[in-house]
Amino acid sequence: MNVAIIGASGYTGLELIKILINHPKFNISYIANSSGEMNVQDLHPSLKNVINMDVNLANAQEVAKVADLAFLALPHKTAMVFAKELLALNVKVVDLSADYRLSLETYEKHYCEHGDKENIKDAVYGLPEYFKEDIKKAKLIANPGCYPTATLLALLPFIDYIETENPIFIDAKSGVSGAGKNPSDTTHYCQINDNVHAYNPFKHRHMPEIEEKIKILKGKELAINFVPHLLPLTRGMLVSVFATLKDDIDVNEILNNAYKDCEFIRLRDKPVDVKSVAGTNFCDLFVTKNGKALFVSSAIDNLLRGASSQAVVNANILCGYEEYEGIPKIAYVP
Amino acid sequence: MNVAIIGASGYTGLELIKILINHPKFNISYIANSSGEMNVQDLHPSLKNVINMDVNLANAQEVAKVADLAFLALPHKTAMVFAKELLALNVKVVDLSADYRLSLETYEKHYCEHGDKENIKDAVYGLPEYFKEDIKKAKLIANPGCYPTATLLALLPFIDYIETENPIFIDAKSGVSGAGKNPSDTTHYCQINDNVHAYNPFKHRHMPEIEEKIKILKGKELAINFVPHLLPLTRGMLVSVFATLKDDIDVNEILNNAYKDCEFIRLRDKPVDVKSVAGTNFCDLFVTKNGKALFVSSAIDNLLRGASSQAVVNANILCGYEEYEGIPKIAYVP
Amino acid sequence: MNVAIIGASGYTGLELIKILINHPKFNISYIANSSGEMNVQDLHPSLKNVINMDVNLANAQEVAKVADLAFLALPHKTAMVFAKELLALNVKVVDLSADYRLSLETYEKHYCEHGDKENIKDAVYGLPEYFKEDIKKAKLIANPGCYPTATLLALLPFIDYIETENPIFIDAKSGVSGAGKNPSDTTHYCQINDNVHAYNPFKHRHMPEIEEKIKILKGKELAINFVPHLLPLTRGMLVSVFATLKDDIDVNEILNNAYKDCEFIRLRDKPVDVKSVAGTNFCDLFVTKNGKALFVSSAIDNLLRGASSQAVVNANILCGYEEYEGIPKIAYVP
Amino acid sequence: MNVAIIGASGYTGLELIKILINHPKFNISYIANSSGEMNVQDLHPSLKNVINMDVNLANAQEVAKVADLAFLALPHKTAMVFAKELLALNVKVVDLSADYRLSLETYEKHYCEHGDKENIKDAVYGLPEYFKEDIKKAKLIANPGCYPTATLLALLPFIDYIETENPIFIDAKSGVSGAGKNPSDTTHYCQINDNVHAYNPFKHRHMPEIEEKIKILKGKELAINFVPHLLPLTRGMLVSVFATLKDDIDVNEILNNAYKDCEFIRLRDKPVDVKSVAGTNFCDLFVTKNGKALFVSSAIDNLLRGASSQAVVNANILCGYEEYEGIPKIAYVP
Repeated sequence: MNVAIIGASGYTGLELIKILINHPKFNISYIANSSGEMNVQDLHPSLKNVINMDVNLANAQEVAKVADLAFLALPHKTAMVFAKELLALNVKVVDLSADYRLSLETYEKHYCEHGDKENIKDAVYGLPEYFKEDIKKAKLIANPGCYPTATLLALLPFIDYIETENPIFIDAKSGVSGAGKNPSDTTHYCQINDNVHAYNPFKHRHMPEIEEKIKILKGKELAINFVPHLLPLTRGMLVSVFATLKDDIDVNEILNNAYKDCEFIRLRDKPVDVKSVAGTNFCDLFVTKNGKALFVSSAIDNLLRGASSQAVVNANILCGYEEYEGIPKIAYVP
Repeated sequence: MNVAIIGASGYTGLELIKILINHPKFNISYIANSSGEMNVQDLHPSLKNVINMDVNLANAQEVAKVADLAFLALPHKTAMVFAKELLALNVKVVDLSADYRLSLETYEKHYCEHGDKENIKDAVYGLPEYFKEDIKKAKLIANPGCYPTATLLALLPFIDYIETENPIFIDAKSGVSGAGKNPSDTTHYCQINDNVHAYNPFKHRHMPEIEEKIKILKGKELAINFVPHLLPLTRGMLVSVFATLKDDIDVNEILNNAYKDCEFIRLRDKPVDVKSVAGTNFCDLFVTKNGKALFVSSAIDNLLRGASSQAVVNANILCGYEEYEGIPKIAYVP
Repeated sequence: MNVAIIGASGYTGLELIKILINHPKFNISYIANSSGEMNVQDLHPSLKNVINMDVNLANAQEVAKVADLAFLALPHKTAMVFAKELLALNVKVVDLSADYRLSLETYEKHYCEHGDKENIKDAVYGLPEYFKEDIKKAKLIANPGCYPTATLLALLPFIDYIETENPIFIDAKSGVSGAGKNPSDTTHYCQINDNVHAYNPFKHRHMPEIEEKIKILKGKELAINFVPHLLPLTRGMLVSVFATLKDDIDVNEILNNAYKDCEFIRLRDKPVDVKSVAGTNFCDLFVTKNGKALFVSSAIDNLLRGASSQAVVNANILCGYEEYEGIPKIAYVP
Repeated sequence: MNVAIIGASGYTGLELIKILINHPKFNISYIANSSGEMNVQDLHPSLKNVINMDVNLANAQEVAKVADLAFLALPHKTAMVFAKELLALNVKVVDLSADYRLSLETYEKHYCEHGDKENIKDAVYGLPEYFKEDIKKAKLIANPGCYPTATLLALLPFIDYIETENPIFIDAKSGVSGAGKNPSDTTHYCQINDNVHAYNPFKHRHMPEIEEKIKILKGKELAINFVPHLLPLTRGMLVSVFATLKDDIDVNEILNNAYKDCEFIRLRDKPVDVKSVAGTNFCDLFVTKNGKALFVSSAIDNLLRGASSQAVVNANILCGYEEYEGIPKIAYVP
């Protein structure tokens, strides 16, 4: 199937290109960014001798001529404009931005007014382990945020077993690629190297995304107390989930039962690390308890399972292909 | 006053040398490690043209001849042997190991049998903001662990305001120097670079140290659920404290009141980072809340406030000098 | 074709596994290290859900039963023992150690007495761009060292154009994975992070390897003045070649002519960086001059083009497959 | 003596503040940047509880009222405007920019038209080991560039012993702080981490600075072939000097003789590293040879010996104080 990548300049756009180049079913027929008029090798010099294609100025009409599905690796607000146009032209959309992840009400509370109130209603949240049946029938996938992916996969199996009146705390740690490619004071090497700090504690926009999905899947209104940190590493994300158990249960058994058929979730008997998942679609999980105190540690590659490889898994399911065709499994270790 | 440094080979030994070289009151009269027969410049080549002294094979009798106070930067179990001998010779001791930090009972439960049951009873826990009066009269200071220092300074002001039946969670993040100078799989560059992982979750030996000091100071038996992580940075430590508030209180006011006279504790209105404290004795604190959920973030230099500079503060107080004479304040930024 | 990997514990062993898992022609039928009795997932936890095979105690007889070709990722001296046995059993060998890279005389001068004087004579040096015809007919490939690979590919095209009486200087910069997986003072994170230094200046054993190959290919006895440096990065190698040009020539044209048909050598019009080649078999080259002064900059992934992927290219050629079947091209950027 | 720091926002401005806070003779009486109206703690949060001063909008008239000497940590072109005004007001100037480092002719060839043709003639190049007598009498010091400092200290002692018709090659490696505080694609963490590359090979503006100073001091017109690299570390600079010796000389003896009375130059018998000098004014040197091939390795802290601490040494000499009063000697190891 011919596919388009809109928003090829950023990190997730590059990761999409890298996955799709070798994908057995998808063929990249169109690449676009906001300027066009260059070769993809000018945009990403590491692709020299790997792929040789023009980068176009993004145009939905042109996409519809050459592709049946489009991946949108665009900033929020820009994504909804293209998604709306593409859907009207019968192009399926996997959107990596935040634009279709939330209910309209929650979106407008935390982001801005929404410009595509029609399609947001039908968008499917692309967390494959929990929404596979919906994804099969979808025309528009809202690819989850990186923090929600790592958090939900760790937390959802335990929702029925924890005291929901007690606060749930999430201490999340992200590599710098999560902050995007644009240079800023925050991403300056001298600011990041040998440093670590929290940012937006209890105020990050991924917090309502996590809360809303728990409500949809588990019927419970929980307050997620989410504190992200920026770490001196390029890619990878490690999330600590802390909660209070109601009873003295076997926490490993719960996790095993939840994910026994999930090839891309690996339960570990030692604390997980990001290097074992960097470069892959895996989510590695570790769980332990101390009396009623629960700790789940969740590791993903923020650009892959937290964005681009999960997007391709969603596209695989949506198109009726094997779920894990062409999905990266080989980590960047050492 | 003449002072000795026993255990000069490791990172905390080096930091002691670096602080004491320029100290207006202390004079290094003796340096020892476990081999001797070298110059301190052979041990630490960065000290060439800075200090020129012999390193001796550690010997308590020799120490007593030339020094009134000794800093012990030794592994636990070794430290207690020297401390016992030195105290018998009327040399005051600031011990950076774990050997005198706990009650005898707690020590023997979490470490091993104690070889100096006499002195452990009289040892004073050297957290200056909380034990200054005891430190003034002490002969033996147990210098706190790095994790307990960062955690207690963040948590203690809030003990009276939190639900103590609910779990308190500590998500701690340490630079690699905290693991010591000996090479191991854990500290190999390729294992640490671009990586992050928890270790000993809910099982670290700094957990009972934190619990015991809270009980002594606040009379409450709390379960501290402590999860340390190893981060790709050389020095620095960031600790997240998560707890449940009982009431809708002004969390900044509480922190301000607790530390308004403490020159080396800085309250910040933005999340703290380790780079602003690396190279100094400062503990930087940030606090916020989300309903009843409390988050305190605490940053220290693990080798200084978490070890060597705090040891010198303790020695200053014990010797009746100005508390902060010769204590490093200038951070390693950028 | 069934292949064996002997020496699966180290970094190059792991890279061989990672390449061969997805190779369209080679099938891994045997994996061994020096202890055996484990699963490859115990050795390399990142391979969980990727490959499930026993790791054997290395045994040449067993290899010969199940494989037609063996990759040896062993220390020098150990490699020659296995190579000798395997060749006697008609198993072809690609040896990643130094044991067969040099003439017997040069080897014994710089390393130690050689235990396989028979086979060293027939070993083919596996630098594909220069020895392809010999590789096709070989039974034993000596896979080049990482420094010689990056240096020779940069220097060889210019040998005819430089003053050979003037010193040639090589300033090489390697990531830490080149020092291997065993922990040491040298590879401790705190020693490497924020640091850089030369080691073995003018004394590294890759120096005679470079000199000997130039003599074989170009008939000239040159003194290569080689200074390697250790850098704070995990993988990647950047080599500066400095020499004196005889005439005012077009240095880019020379490089273009030398490698115009070489898919895995990329000539760049901006200075090359290691990130664009990390994860791939590419060698990126940049050249410029200042009067008679020549500068060539060469970037490779030390574990791939400098070891494991070049080994698989050699195996491809030796077995009559397409030279670049299954060879990694997608870099680890960002 | 009261001193002013003009240009307090950048890295070298911060380092000046950090040195001068504890200087026994200099007193910071004025701090300025291009916006003013803030406290120095707002500009550099790490200075909280360390120094409490207003930052002013830079104004030469105000400086002249409160200070006898000014350090200019400004971009080139801006620096000359202030220097001219301050000198007219009888304020002595130590300028850290490039504006007064070169002869007028060389400056205008490599930078731009010069706006202070009067004072550039009398500026003294502040490399203390070579220009001490001139510095004593100067009113305007041109503080050397970081690359020229590390290169000249390594190369000057050998000028009389090398073949000057053969190219001299400099392979320099700098930490990212050398690129300044402003965020850019070049200094983005994801671009620097795990990466290394050359930039401006044979074209850097520090090349003519090195050449001109050799001509002044040694009377020889040499072509310096200079290739800088950007490394994944915050501070520190390592420079390789490669040249051809005329005779079989004792290279260590030459270096020893050149610097036997220089407290801040340390000759090493092992290759130097940047970590041993980071945080200090030291220049560490190592030399070896291979036949006629010479290799000198030179390590400095680019922000201190390459900028701010050398500026304070110059100020000490100029003011008749002890050369090394208040100059940092304690390295940031580990």
